[in-house]
Amino acid sequence: MFESAELGHKISKEIWKKEIPALREGLLDAQLDLLQTKKFPVIILVAGVDCGGKGETVNILNEWLDPRHIETHALRDLTDEELERPQMYRYWRVLPPRGKIGIFIGTWYSAPLVENVYGGIKNAELDQRLERISRFEKMLCNEGALVLKFWLHLSHDGQKKRLKYLEKDPKTRWRVTDGDWQNFKHYDQFRKVSERMLRSTSTAESPWIIVEGTDPRYRYLTIGKAVLSAMRQRLDTPEPPHHEEPIPPIMPVIDDLLILRTLDMSKTIDKNEYEGELEKYQGKLNLLTRHSGFKKLSVVVVFEGNDAAGKGGSIRRITQALDARQYRVIPVAAPTEEERAQPYLWRFWRSIPRKGRFAIFDRSWYGRVLVERVEGYCDRGDWMRAYGEINDFEEQLVRNQTVVVKFWLSVTQQEQLRRFKEREKIGFKRFKITDEDWRNREKWDQYELAVCDMIDRTSTEIAPWTLVEANDKNFARIKVMKTLCERIEQALEK
Amino acid sequence: MFESAELGHKISKEIWKKEIPALREGLLDAQLDLLQTKKFPVIILVAGVDCGGKGETVNILNEWLDPRHIETHALRDLTDEELERPQMYRYWRVLPPRGKIGIFIGTWYSAPLVENVYGGIKNAELDQRLERISRFEKMLCNEGALVLKFWLHLSHDGQKKRLKYLEKDPKTRWRVTDGDWQNFKHYDQFRKVSERMLRSTSTAESPWIIVEGTDPRYRYLTIGKAVLSAMRQRLDTPEPPHHEEPIPPIMPVIDDLLILRTLDMSKTIDKNEYEGELEKYQGKLNLLTRHSGFKKLSVVVVFEGNDAAGKGGSIRRITQALDARQYRVIPVAAPTEEERAQPYLWRFWRSIPRKGRFAIFDRSWYGRVLVERVEGYCDRGDWMRAYGEINDFEEQLVRNQTVVVKFWLSVTQQEQLRRFKEREKIGFKRFKITDEDWRNREKWDQYELAVCDMIDRTSTEIAPWTLVEANDKNFARIKVMKTLCERIEQALEK
Repeated sequence: MFESAELGHKISKEIWKKEIPALREGLLDAQLDLLQTKKFPVIILVAGVDCGGKGETVNILNEWLDPRHIETHALRDLTDEELERPQMYRYWRVLPPRGKIGIFIGTWYSAPLVENVYGGIKNAELDQRLERISRFEKMLCNEGALVLKFWLHLSHDGQKKRLKYLEKDPKTRWRVTDGDWQNFKHYDQFRKVSERMLRSTSTAESPWIIVEGTDPRYRYLTIGKAVLSAMRQRLDTPEPPHHEEPIPPIMPVIDDLLILRTLDMSKTIDKNEYEGELEKYQGKLNLLTRHSGFKKLSVVVVFEGNDAAGKGGSIRRITQALDARQYRVIPVAAPTEEERAQPYLWRFWRSIPRKGRFAIFDRSWYGRVLVERVEGYCDRGDWMRAYGEINDFEEQLVRNQTVVVKFWLSVTQQEQLRRFKEREKIGFKRFKITDEDWRNREKWDQYELAVCDMIDRTSTEIAPWTLVEANDKNFARIKVMKTLCERIEQALEK
Repeated sequence: MFESAELGHKISKEIWKKEIPALREGLLDAQLDLLQTKKFPVIILVAGVDCGGKGETVNILNEWLDPRHIETHALRDLTDEELERPQMYRYWRVLPPRGKIGIFIGTWYSAPLVENVYGGIKNAELDQRLERISRFEKMLCNEGALVLKFWLHLSHDGQKKRLKYLEKDPKTRWRVTDGDWQNFKHYDQFRKVSERMLRSTSTAESPWIIVEGTDPRYRYLTIGKAVLSAMRQRLDTPEPPHHEEPIPPIMPVIDDLLILRTLDMSKTIDKNEYEGELEKYQGKLNLLTRHSGFKKLSVVVVFEGNDAAGKGGSIRRITQALDARQYRVIPVAAPTEEERAQPYLWRFWRSIPRKGRFAIFDRSWYGRVLVERVEGYCDRGDWMRAYGEINDFEEQLVRNQTVVVKFWLSVTQQEQLRRFKEREKIGFKRFKITDEDWRNREKWDQYELAVCDMIDRTSTEIAPWTLVEANDKNFARIKVMKTLCERIEQALEK
């Protein structure tokens, strides 16, 4: 794998002088087109061996391109705000929006590599983490990002020479740390693991480009040209036309047994029992949040459901039991301008809670496979892949000790109609009913299929859906409270 | 000041039951109007004595209002991302946008109060900090925010009773901390300092509302009604018409001696000297950033100037000398949707650098007193007050060990014309010239006056403007590099 990067590539001063002006002009031009068309974001990863010239390469890209539209991220130590969230949070929060270039040194590859070499994680876990990285990058590419990954390589002797060379010159001595020498002792091990890593994460959408790091001119010219040609190619490719296909069910429906239709919608609870149960579970929830173990958890609650199914009311029963300092309710409506310039999951990553906190989503990332699917706001391919991306996202939350509790609040068509009409009548409920609600209602069957698909494809062992029969609001509220308490309890017992 | 809050206010159960339904409906209604009109943000501060019922009050507001459009912030320990920035950063980053309600427990008043009582800061510094807080709140109000400040008061005996009462019940025991008893020993001192604080920060725009904390029903009803009436009043007041007045100079210009016109625009540097100096100052700048003291500083560089004055080129000469990992260039264009929903300085607070980093602004917050003033994008009152707000902002940066370096790059009208024409001719410079540039040029005189006002009113000892004669680009670049080096050097010597 590293063969071609140990051949002693060298670029003469003459070639350099001849090539550079056109390259720089081309890069600036491509960057300007990118900025104006806002077609996609560019994510450049600069990784590789210690002192292989990562920093210098990033500096020269910043020199050649217009640095005003580049964001360089050298992520080293985690801040405490990052420590309390899933590993990928720090990257999500600084992803470049469409039209911009983000350069990363110190990428999502660093930690698994180093931890494997030094024995922190075994090969099996390494492979798992690499698999997750691949899925993450695939999602970025599917969301339109241009992901360019450069690996700066030095041979064993090459790296030794380089470390010594840098150390001799007082001007560059600071760049060689004890850690670099320490890592160098494990050169063969690093090489072996890097190779495994590059192999398993080099994909058609975002292949690794391995660059010999010895000769700066060779290094810069190779990377500069690779960046230019990739950007130019994407910029010059016309956008594929947006398909307005009809929405076929993923699986043919050949009988009437839909999961939603199996719910017993006649379930109710009488008023006295409701009041007793509500008090019981609110008290319980409050106690759970003051359990000593709760400081290590966080809770993400997702509310989806038919319009007028009573999401707001259920949320309020939860928040009543909590201290306002420890929760945030996130109402999800149309994305803002900044959010639209990012992958669709970006805006949810923004709201991930710290430890000891709740984030309660009133509608959520599932909009992608519900309203966006049914209304054709995204292509079939987009919502089809969203199931997997959402599962990946929730898995990361769970791995970070987040309890993910998802509710689908279901009402029948008749009950919905009754509530719509009631809402139109009552003054202070008027805001709860809009033309859109009526329009959505006309697509009841399509929504029903989408919901069933969603449940089948995203109800996982770690983050299951709870279907809530919500024709009786009180019944629904108790089921929600009880489920939430149980899930938190289970997590505390672990 | 606390007299009325020690009278033993009490609300009977009957009155409570009678009043609450209408209050809740009114609050929900006002909140909905706010959400739909997006007229202003509501900032509610809940402060006061320990165990005076702050948390419970915030909980009840969240219960009465729709919690989906409230953000509650209980800011306690600073995160390390906040620690490296000015004190007010943590509040700026969570300000509610127009249409939303932000509730703060643990406000900007806590630290000065506690520090003064325990002797960390003397009265003179307390007064300084309170004065800054007043200016901050005044700015929020001027930017349209509704700022409501509640102080929950308990008498000496009242607080003692309350602490004991909470401690007795196992369910509430956790709410009384050692710190609370510790503070209680200093009750008289806290009372004295609080009074001074409330007095000096109670203004016409945002007066303190002191509420007796003993009786919960009294407390909640008072605060609920105060919130409702303040919101309702603001919502029902029609927006004042936007004044499109002509822009008069602040000070009559009665001779030709404008500061910009006193510049010797014929200054040049010859090419050899330029190259030598550039290398010298780039080297120097690079060394300065590796000085051990630099880790405690941050640097904010502001570039303003005539169109085509060479801001981009000067910025590039700086970034060439730096490691890409330690700077960010922030190009300032029209604000995004999220930014427009906030006070105008909000988007700059977002980009404040951490320690050891540079933030280089290509155009800046000075847009308010330049383009926004000249083009009438804001009212006269808005840009007039901006001078003071900007000075306050920069003072906070400087107090946080930030070196603030501001450049005005000046070219003559003739030179600008030459560059515009040149840009139109050269392919890869085409993006640098737009119709807007030509339009701005027609308002040359108005911009000139605005610049002179800006310099007079915001060139402060701590953050002076450097006027750069930029008809010769090379001369300008050297002056920029030299000034920047000197300013950082001075800061390191302190």
